[in-house]
Amino acid sequence: MGSRRRLAPGATVSRVSTPSSAGMASRAETAGPPETDRPAMLFDLDGTLIDSVYQHVLAWQEALAEFGIELSVWKIHRRIGMSGGLFVSALLRETRGSLSPEQIRDINLAHAAAFGRRRATVRPLPGAGALLDLLTDQGVKWAIATSGPASAARPALDLLGLTENTPLVTRDQVRHAKPDPDLFIAAAALIGVEVTDAIVVGDSIWDLLAARRAGALGVGLLSGGYGREELERAGAYRVYADPADLLDHLDEVGIRRDPAWPVG
Amino acid sequence: MGSRRRLAPGATVSRVSTPSSAGMASRAETAGPPETDRPAMLFDLDGTLIDSVYQHVLAWQEALAEFGIELSVWKIHRRIGMSGGLFVSALLRETRGSLSPEQIRDINLAHAAAFGRRRATVRPLPGAGALLDLLTDQGVKWAIATSGPASAARPALDLLGLTENTPLVTRDQVRHAKPDPDLFIAAAALIGVEVTDAIVVGDSIWDLLAARRAGALGVGLLSGGYGREELERAGAYRVYADPADLLDHLDEVGIRRDPAWPVG
Repeated sequence: MGSRRRLAPGATVSRVSTPSSAGMASRAETAGPPETDRPAMLFDLDGTLIDSVYQHVLAWQEALAEFGIELSVWKIHRRIGMSGGLFVSALLRETRGSLSPEQIRDINLAHAAAFGRRRATVRPLPGAGALLDLLTDQGVKWAIATSGPASAARPALDLLGLTENTPLVTRDQVRHAKPDPDLFIAAAALIGVEVTDAIVVGDSIWDLLAARRAGALGVGLLSGGYGREELERAGAYRVYADPADLLDHLDEVGIRRDPAWPVG
Repeated sequence: MGSRRRLAPGATVSRVSTPSSAGMASRAETAGPPETDRPAMLFDLDGTLIDSVYQHVLAWQEALAEFGIELSVWKIHRRIGMSGGLFVSALLRETRGSLSPEQIRDINLAHAAAFGRRRATVRPLPGAGALLDLLTDQGVKWAIATSGPASAARPALDLLGLTENTPLVTRDQVRHAKPDPDLFIAAAALIGVEVTDAIVVGDSIWDLLAARRAGALGVGLLSGGYGREELERAGAYRVYADPADLLDHLDEVGIRRDPAWPVG
């Protein structure tokens, strides 16, 4: 984030930068110190905004077992959040097996069914709704980018009390999911910001690897069950417990309080 | 483990040291270099020998929810393996609630029931049976020490193909469970070895803290879902993926192959 610079106190800048270099041009026209737009925030969904990772892990165990694939549960956990195709490939490497495209599709369907049976126990993570509300109130742009399909993301929006208009990019909309950067690049484009000016927030190393490849700042959350050091090693600039903890420390990632923003 | 020293090649030593200093006395009588007994191994159960941590995590979530306690699942995961009393205290600190002893007992019963409904999906971890068989064949003493109750440990022995005579210490048999050292001290006494000559193998930081307090060498396994660095920071001398990986690297923790032990 070498291009991030201090925002002059009291300065008002456009909150939207187009994917072109319009922002740079406007800076060149001013005589004062350089200014950047306020950073946008791009959120992963499972384990970052909703508390669904462990249910996904055991749903995958159940789905794989139906196809005779026995894998240690922690190995499934450490692959959650990556693209479904890469996920199955990684797990097959562990078992040294092979599957046809039809079988992979059927396993994904079995996982969706097994997760559906566990969905009633999924809750928003602490502070998720408050964090998104506050960003909206403050005019900080944000979007959600998930390796899951739209069919899984829509119920999650309901859980978070978000409308259908929420900026959301799902697996179906890009060619490659995480750890490729495509999801975050598409999410930044959707809300009209440069991905290199965005902060990616995620709970898995796949989010953080994708953030690095996109040139975005990565922030890790412990709420998906990874350890702090795993997230730091994958490139997290800062690690917080969950959305509530991030909300308490937004200043540390460069989100400035509006003077009208009540403290506490 | 400053007292551990090279075993002279071909030397035969007693595999059992009494809790007194009999071993030291016999060394004092010899003119040659000092020798120690072969180390014993003390194993945690859940997440170390059987793949049950994630089922326990969601069973706790279900049990706590029945009592109106909503907690993020990753916070439950990071407390698994500690004493049930400390576990509930730690979770109550998170929720700032309070419970009567009767309620704590009822939550523990609800957890046991919820885990029972998930037990059919629990498997031995890769290499667990092979590792224990090999230690037995090699005359390396070992025992299991778990923060769980005997009622949960006995079905786990069946799963591992172990008999009722397996050296086992459960929660019911000590005053304080992990991270207090009592379970590992009792397990060492049960098989007649000094705990300071033992290697504790566990998947959680509570195992490793208990190992340090007992003066034993701690070895971590990733199979309970903690990160490598978390285990190292808690004092793990080495970290392996699972029992199969430990079996492949027994030499690294000072378990020497018997010359008659087939390679591979």
